[in-house]
Order: sequence, then structure tokens, then C-alpha cells
Amino acid sequence: MKFSAERATLLKALAHIQSVAEKRNTIPILANVLIQAANGQLSLKATDMEIEVVEEVPAKITREGATTAPAAVLYEIVRKLPDGVDVELDQADSEGPLLLRAGRYATRLNVLSVDDFPSMGAGDFPHRFKLPATTLHSLIDRTRFAISTEETRYYLNGIFLHGTEVDGEPKLRAVATDGHRLARVEADLPAGAAGMPGVIVPRKTVAEVRKLIDEAPEEVEIALSETRIQFTAGPVTLTSKLIDGTFPEYERVIPRNNTRILRVGKKDFADAVARVAAISQERSRPVKLTLEPGLLTLSASSAEQGVAKEELDDNRISYDAEGLEIGFQARYLNDITDQVEKEVEFAFADSASPTIVRDVDSPSALYVLMPMRV
Amino acid sequence: MKFSAERATLLKALAHIQSVAEKRNTIPILANVLIQAANGQLSLKATDMEIEVVEEVPAKITREGATTAPAAVLYEIVRKLPDGVDVELDQADSEGPLLLRAGRYATRLNVLSVDDFPSMGAGDFPHRFKLPATTLHSLIDRTRFAISTEETRYYLNGIFLHGTEVDGEPKLRAVATDGHRLARVEADLPAGAAGMPGVIVPRKTVAEVRKLIDEAPEEVEIALSETRIQFTAGPVTLTSKLIDGTFPEYERVIPRNNTRILRVGKKDFADAVARVAAISQERSRPVKLTLEPGLLTLSASSAEQGVAKEELDDNRISYDAEGLEIGFQARYLNDITDQVEKEVEFAFADSASPTIVRDVDSPSALYVLMPMRV
Repeated sequence: MKFSAERATLLKALAHIQSVAEKRNTIPILANVLIQAANGQLSLKATDMEIEVVEEVPAKITREGATTAPAAVLYEIVRKLPDGVDVELDQADSEGPLLLRAGRYATRLNVLSVDDFPSMGAGDFPHRFKLPATTLHSLIDRTRFAISTEETRYYLNGIFLHGTEVDGEPKLRAVATDGHRLARVEADLPAGAAGMPGVIVPRKTVAEVRKLIDEAPEEVEIALSETRIQFTAGPVTLTSKLIDGTFPEYERVIPRNNTRILRVGKKDFADAVARVAAISQERSRPVKLTLEPGLLTLSASSAEQGVAKEELDDNRISYDAEGLEIGFQARYLNDITDQVEKEVEFAFADSASPTIVRDVDSPSALYVLMPMRV
Repeated sequence: MKFSAERATLLKALAHIQSVAEKRNTIPILANVLIQAANGQLSLKATDMEIEVVEEVPAKITREGATTAPAAVLYEIVRKLPDGVDVELDQADSEGPLLLRAGRYATRLNVLSVDDFPSMGAGDFPHRFKLPATTLHSLIDRTRFAISTEETRYYLNGIFLHGTEVDGEPKLRAVATDGHRLARVEADLPAGAAGMPGVIVPRKTVAEVRKLIDEAPEEVEIALSETRIQFTAGPVTLTSKLIDGTFPEYERVIPRNNTRILRVGKKDFADAVARVAAISQERSRPVKLTLEPGLLTLSASSAEQGVAKEELDDNRISYDAEGLEIGFQARYLNDITDQVEKEVEFAFADSASPTIVRDVDSPSALYVLMPMRV
């Protein structure tokens, strides 16, 4: 095998590849990238046996062949080469080392056999649809903060993606929850997604896909089976196992009759939360909201440090329901207000029941937050 | 006590203060800032019993008094207040809580008694001199990377500052070493420093002083005794204990007769080191320099990954002494070339002896690097 590729092109592909390759040293071949030059086309591939990523890279191929080399080392080397240089990779025979040359720099990399490189096996994908990259971006970013990290409830360790109907309109929905808060975001159901199964996309897959769409292809192709999901964005194809579990019936925890409505500017609210929460260094510090018509008082206290409070009056908020005291973890309030553009709406029932939070300008997203006793 | 101060002014002072205050929770009063409003002047003070920092802050004092409050919390609160706001601090009686108000935000902070706030005790300073901030900056930045972190050799855990004579000229010298490399930087001895004792300034003090001069006062006043050093930069005075130990006779390890001279562009050299070192992920990975007239070859290898090498020819380097092979830890080479502006000069003896490194354009600094066997 022998080919040369432009450093920047190769670097971009290796960045995707090394991110998926296994970093722990348990199975050496999983730390390697499979490099294949065949049919006039160069492709790079890595897998951790949960996710597999393949990328086509423009290259000048002078001799076809295939090998595997350490992904992280190859990435580091190419990253440190000067911009604009051509990188030549050359393996004289299929068992021998891989030579990398660029200018007067040369590396001889140890390889592992192509035969040992595992294939995850994707099978057939009966469901296929396309999503604008911006839509996928929005579905991921507005839900991923709520993904659970608790390994025992493994079926919450991802984003639940499924088709549904809202007011007679078919929708694609993304939901994530950790039991303390829930995020639910909708987009129009794309053609081809009708009849798709509900699937739970694992956290690591979500993170990798999110990186791919940062490079802004216009559209992402998604293919689905009961056990696999595949994202194709430009030259990159990422295939992932799905979480084999049942996502809870989340609609049950979304209250329908919360009638006490608070509206407040996102920045006013977030700044006030930050200031009152600064009194305590506890991670799960609660912030208390005390509501009366035309007045929101935020407060927090710490046995050691003291108490803090801030008032937002009717120049800053609108609230005309009856009085209420309710507490939330400061960081949960932050995570949700981070999703809001300008104005946030809270719909409360009482101080012990789930609260609904919305971005006033973005009705496609809904958040549920459990209060804590204060 | 009651006063008000402009948020930005107060924040800047609290940033210095909270950085010195003790973060661990062992002695609660050490986490507090001593706030004193007396003689029409507001001052803030913190100590960890090794370092003490006092800062004068412009404020409108309406009632004199003193108290202590949690430094980190106060800093966090003031940091999160909107820019431009006036912050009022009010303690009605000397035992009661401290109220902080800013707009509609209010905090009641628990306090600890002023009587319990420890004083480090500075004593007299028989030696006093001034240094331009840029000079102190250079003495610190070009030596601190070589400070040892090994606690058993506590006398190497700081920068050794002392007066000396070079070619009949009186000089102020800063030296640091960890046994593997040494950095020695000189400046003209300022008036008043003649006869000063050699002192070892602890690592944390170095870091705190470095932050103060980042805010660029023109000049820093330094006062010295056998056991204390005091830095005054504008409104801030930082007093520190010195390390009670004997700095080794470092001149003995600086070779005098290294005659094989290599000159190379700093960027060419640093980039080549980074590229060849990328073959190995070990922290102490060695890079081998192979020299022959007009040619420098850098190389590194890893049993697992392979080998890498890069050549720099006589377009990039100048070397006309006899051939030599010598190895260094990649990160030690990096640390030193980081100090060099444009061109670096190595003076070698042989592959087992200390090597001298210099910035060609900056003769006041000298570095010594121990080779490692490769």
C-alpha cells in the first residue's frame, strides 16, 4: 500500500477516527485505525465494538493495500506536521512496518494484522431518513444535558428517539431524563421515518455525532434497525449499537394542569440564581423561589456561610397567580436556562410537584424539573 | 462597620485575597478575609500562615470597624454581581452577621471574630530595593519551570534569589533546579540590594507574585530579612516566609568547557522534537539528537509503536564540531525552548555530561540540562 494525502484532510479524518478508537489498552487492535486503499479510494476505520466510524479521504493512491496502525500516535504525528505538507504512507509488504514521510520527517510505525481488525456487523437498516444538520443539532443539544450517568439505570444512559403525533402532525421526538429532570424536543417527522422503532442512542454516540455535525454538512442521513443506528454526514459514516432496554413511559411524569405561570428574562433569572447560589459550595445546593403576584424572591442558605436573597419585581417578571414557595437544585436550573434564548416560562402546580419549563420563543422544547424540599 | 465600594475594584482585590486564603477546611478562620475599615481606609487581608496578603481598596466608609468573612464566597458573590454596581457591606455590631447589598440582591454572611485572625508576624526588613515589574517577570518566568516538586528536597522547592558579581558587575540572580535541569537568570543588582542574604522564595509565593505583576504596576518594592520576603506592588503587599534551607552550590554543575556548539531556530527545533516525540506516549520519553557537521537528526522510538526521525540540515542549523549522540527528555527540551525567543544555542561536552542551553538573543539567561541514556 502506498498513497499520499494532504495533511489538513488527513488530520480532519484522523480526528474523528482517534476519538472513537479505544484508548484503554485492553485489546491492542482496538487502538488501531484500519487504513484501506482499494478501488482508487482511501478509507480509514476505527471501532470500540460499540461504535464504528468509517471515513473516505481524498488521496493519491499509487499502490493499493490495507494495514492497521496506532490511531492516537498517527493523529498526534499528523497534527504536529506543518500545515500544507503532503503526507506519504507506504507499506512495502503487508506484514512490514508502515512508513510515514513528510518532508525530512519519517516515522516507521508498527502495525497489527488487518485480519485481526474486528467488524461490528451492522446488518440491514429497514428505516432510512434525512435530517437537516441544524435539526439534529437542536434535538441533541437541548436534551443531552439530561441524560443519566447512573449505570444501573442503563436505559436512561442515552437519548430516546422515536416517532409520535402531536395535534395530528407526525413528529420526531428526542427525550432524555435522569429522574430529576426531563428534556423533550420535537422536530417534524422526516419522510421515511414513519414506522421507525423507538431507539435509545448511547451517550458516547451522541457526543461523537455532535462533533461530526459541528463541521456542518447540510444534511445527515440516518439509518435504523432494532439494534443499530447509522449516521452518514458527508464522507463519514458512524454506526452504533443501540441501548438494549425500554425507555420509561415518560409522558406520565409530564403534568398537564400546571396553572401558575411565571415568565422571566433568561439572563435576569440565571444571574440571580448564580448570585444566591454563590453562598454555598455544595454541589446539590438548593435555590428557593418565593412567588407572590408581581414579585419573585430567590434565596439560598448555607449553615456555615449565611444566607443570600435577590428580588425580581414586576419590571422583570410576570406572575399573577397565588403565592408559592418551591426549591430546585441550582445546577438543574442552570442546565435548563442554558437552553433558553431570551425568556423562560415556568408552569408550577405546587411546591412538591413537577414543574414545566419552556423557552417562550421555542415551543418545540419542553423541560420538566422535580422540586426539592427547602 | 459600613462602607461601599465599586464592584470591579472590590473584585480585583478579592481575587488576590481569595487566592492566598486557605482552601482546605482545617482551620476555618484561614478561609476568611479580614476586612478592616479604619482611619478612612479599607483594607483586606488573607493568610495561609506561609503567605499573607494585604490590599488597600478605595471605598466610601460611613462607619469604621473590622470583621472576617469567608473569602471564597465573598469573591464568588462579587464576581457574579453586574458590572458597575456599588457594593455595600454593613455590620451593625462587631459580633453580628455581615450584610452585603447590591441593588435588590442581599446576603447575610456569617462572620468569625477578628481576634482569632492570625498574624504571620513579619519583623524587620533590613534590606529594601525596587525592581522594574518587567525584570521581576523575567526572573520568575525563565526559572520557575525548573523548580523541584519533590518534597524531600524542600530546599529546591523555590527560586534561589541572591546577589553576585559577573565580570566585576553586581548582579541579582534567580536560580531554580530540580536536579535534572537548572535555570539561572540575571539582572542588574538594584540599589539597596547589596549585602542581601541569599533567599529561597517558595513556589506558591512565586505564583502569587507572578499574578500580581501581571496587572503591571511599573515597579515592585522588595523587602528582605533572613526569614521573610515582602513584595509591594501598587496597593498590594504580599509577605511570605522563606524556605529555611541551604540552596546547593549550583555553580559546580555548570560546565565551563563545552565546546561543541549547535545553533538552531527555536521553532524548527521545537516542532521537530514534538513530531518525533509523538511516537511515544511515555511521560519521560527521550529524544535523541545525532549531530554531525551540518546535520542534526532527531529521533525517538517506542517498543510498541515504532520509530520516528527528522533531519534538520545546514539550511536550518549550524554545527561544525565532531559527531555526537545525546539524549534528553522531550518535555525538558520543550520547557527550555519555551523560554527562547528565536534562536537556541546548545553547548555540548559529550553524551553523558551536562549540556548548556542559551537563548542567543538573551545572554542573561543560562540553562543546564542533564542528558539521559538513549
